Amino acid sequence: MTAKNAFYAQSGGVTAVINASACGIIETAAQYSDRIHKVYAGRNGIVGALTETLIDTSLESIEDIRALSHTPAGAFGSCRYKLKGLEENRAEYERLIAVFQAHNIGYFFYNGGGDSQDTAHKVALMAKALNYPLSCIGIPKTIDNDLPFTDTCPGFGSVAKYVAISTREAALDVASMASTSTKVFILEVMGRHAGWIAASSVLAKQPSNDAPHLILLPEITFHKQRFCEALKKVVETYGFAVVVASEGIKNETGAFVSASSHKDAFGHAQLGGVAPVLASLATELGFKTHWAVADYLQRAARHIASTVDVEQAYALGKAAVEFALQGQNAVMPIIIRDSDSPYRWHIEAVSLETVANQEKKLPKEFISHDGFGVTENCIKYLKPLIQGEAYPPYHEGLPQYVTLKNQQIAKKLPAFTLNKK
Amino acid sequence: MTAKNAFYAQSGGVTAVINASACGIIETAAQYSDRIHKVYAGRNGIVGALTETLIDTSLESIEDIRALSHTPAGAFGSCRYKLKGLEENRAEYERLIAVFQAHNIGYFFYNGGGDSQDTAHKVALMAKALNYPLSCIGIPKTIDNDLPFTDTCPGFGSVAKYVAISTREAALDVASMASTSTKVFILEVMGRHAGWIAASSVLAKQPSNDAPHLILLPEITFHKQRFCEALKKVVETYGFAVVVASEGIKNETGAFVSASSHKDAFGHAQLGGVAPVLASLATELGFKTHWAVADYLQRAARHIASTVDVEQAYALGKAAVEFALQGQNAVMPIIIRDSDSPYRWHIEAVSLETVANQEKKLPKEFISHDGFGVTENCIKYLKPLIQGEAYPPYHEGLPQYVTLKNQQIAKKLPAFTLNKK
Repeated sequence: MTAKNAFYAQSGGVTAVINASACGIIETAAQYSDRIHKVYAGRNGIVGALTETLIDTSLESIEDIRALSHTPAGAFGSCRYKLKGLEENRAEYERLIAVFQAHNIGYFFYNGGGDSQDTAHKVALMAKALNYPLSCIGIPKTIDNDLPFTDTCPGFGSVAKYVAISTREAALDVASMASTSTKVFILEVMGRHAGWIAASSVLAKQPSNDAPHLILLPEITFHKQRFCEALKKVVETYGFAVVVASEGIKNETGAFVSASSHKDAFGHAQLGGVAPVLASLATELGFKTHWAVADYLQRAARHIASTVDVEQAYALGKAAVEFALQGQNAVMPIIIRDSDSPYRWHIEAVSLETVANQEKKLPKEFISHDGFGVTENCIKYLKPLIQGEAYPPYHEGLPQYVTLKNQQIAKKLPAFTLNKK
Repeated sequence: MTAKNAFYAQSGGVTAVINASACGIIETAAQYSDRIHKVYAGRNGIVGALTETLIDTSLESIEDIRALSHTPAGAFGSCRYKLKGLEENRAEYERLIAVFQAHNIGYFFYNGGGDSQDTAHKVALMAKALNYPLSCIGIPKTIDNDLPFTDTCPGFGSVAKYVAISTREAALDVASMASTSTKVFILEVMGRHAGWIAASSVLAKQPSNDAPHLILLPEITFHKQRFCEALKKVVETYGFAVVVASEGIKNETGAFVSASSHKDAFGHAQLGGVAPVLASLATELGFKTHWAVADYLQRAARHIASTVDVEQAYALGKAAVEFALQGQNAVMPIIIRDSDSPYRWHIEAVSLETVANQEKKLPKEFISHDGFGVTENCIKYLKPLIQGEAYPPYHEGLPQYVTLKNQQIAKKLPAFTLNKK
């Protein structure tokens, strides 16, 4: 059996640990060099495959590949580029197979969220239709934690840890100033449709101040009046209030509470700005208010990544290679939880077809009756995911993140024009 | 010589390391128990002295006092309450002396910024006028780094480190997505009049992407047109842009660029919201833009505090006690830099009179010619201040910050009505 090359691409919003999955793939593939010759990474994700812009990861040093495990964001570049359906744009899928064929690629590893798993599934279908031998494996990744079947998604645990720590720290700040100054602090976090990130702030709770006091989830309709009443009550009780709000909360009419809403390449609304809206409400109630919007800081915060998250990201990359070598196709490795405390988990495979385009929201039994918090069951679920501090190495006071050489291989095919959005 | 008690209070906006100064004071005082009997802390700062709400720190365990060195915010509560001038409100100063007399207080340690050092100075004048023996020592504290004479102010180094790390991490995120998604990222940081915090983001720079590309300082007038042109040029050059903006930037008319402006108890404008304003400009240029507002997260981020900052905060608290015991009065310990690399420093005393109400802005020679960045000299100044990672201990994935018992001593005087703002 001749060795084939592998193609790896990062897709969609990057995370603090997606490069740890890349590290798992590249290091594991290197252990099977008799079967996997080289791992080519797509420059800027799947766009790199379409444009035949392939990075030869074998030209990086072993140390630099290792350093991926502590480097946030997408080391090869990611993209927001959704391939259309097979019928709508067969040319793109055919192009992918042509590029794979030109570079003797027998393994396709696609590291992304729900949309990307859908793409990976379609690529598998096309390869089969064209009779091209290709092992397609998806690797889960999304800070939103909204993929089905898997216990959690790499990227989420580290955001959860960042949000919980930031909430605890800001709460101490507000608590110490509230007698004469700021009484309300609002932290806006990511989460378009699923409230997992906002929910994770619950882990910040301490008996001394019970913050965060109100968690606003996209699963629960936002009522201005109810929010204001709840806020007043919290300030009366504790002398101050800490609110953690998901960017994706909507009002009774189904409109996002945040003012602006653009759309990204996947057709999702691009949000931001819930915190200032809520801050105006709090100010109208007479409370001095401060607000923060964590935005990219939360998903790039490798400096305080969760060890569990880093380990799972790596393990899923490793498993992807192993599944491929076992002859599996059109599957995604997922985390199965064996126990909460101590947290034990193992990896299984699930078919891409069942994963694609599904969204796992916060289940009802995880949301408190008043809708402003989460339940003990939710806490039990979240807690294991933020364990351990996977500190990166530092140089002169700053984290030493790696920049790869990213050397591209020679193109063999004619140029290809990308589908315009 | 009979032992006297000491009074300690935290004032103004809290920081990641103000409790380290408290730790330095309490631990050092304990070494001189023959001269300093007990350290009483004001509940919510100077308000605690006026209302005779005094915390007996000797009732805390040695371990809990030690834990102050890794706990952010104000463990005894801080306040924004500015005493008026001696002529305007002599009653408040007399009340302070009466409370000190009632509790045999001979040492007054006041931990705050410029306004607080002014207060400490006035208290010293009043004690002298009333012939009450009191040693008044100010301990510097402000994330704004705007006190004169001292090389730096405790609290600043840790914010600088947080901002530099966050900028580096977010820059990697944007760089990896820019080909098909977000091209501009804007981070808003604190700094009303002095640009030290925004300037510190320069330390994030790496040859690979050179972010942050534009630093907006309050020392430089904001011109919309110039900003837009500079932004376009950066995106053309690098494919993306990272902008770090101080909350306090003003336009040609002298108005804050941020939309809203309330005033705090000191009469300072309360700002916030520069980032969304800049984001609108970038969006108008056709760039997909994301923005973050760090707000309290930056000054409470003890999880990634600078070791240098923690050590200086502690050392200044310790020095305050030692100065008092040497018979000094109406002084503040400051940091004198002996060398940049390796960073060497020692502590000296400066009179409160000369410190009070001065504001140290970024000097001209620290700002680049185009006004969108800082110079090598500025980098040389900033670099030592973020060295070392003073990680707090963790429990179950979260920093273990201490909550003190804060037991109050019995009041001896009639109640006192606070001066209404």
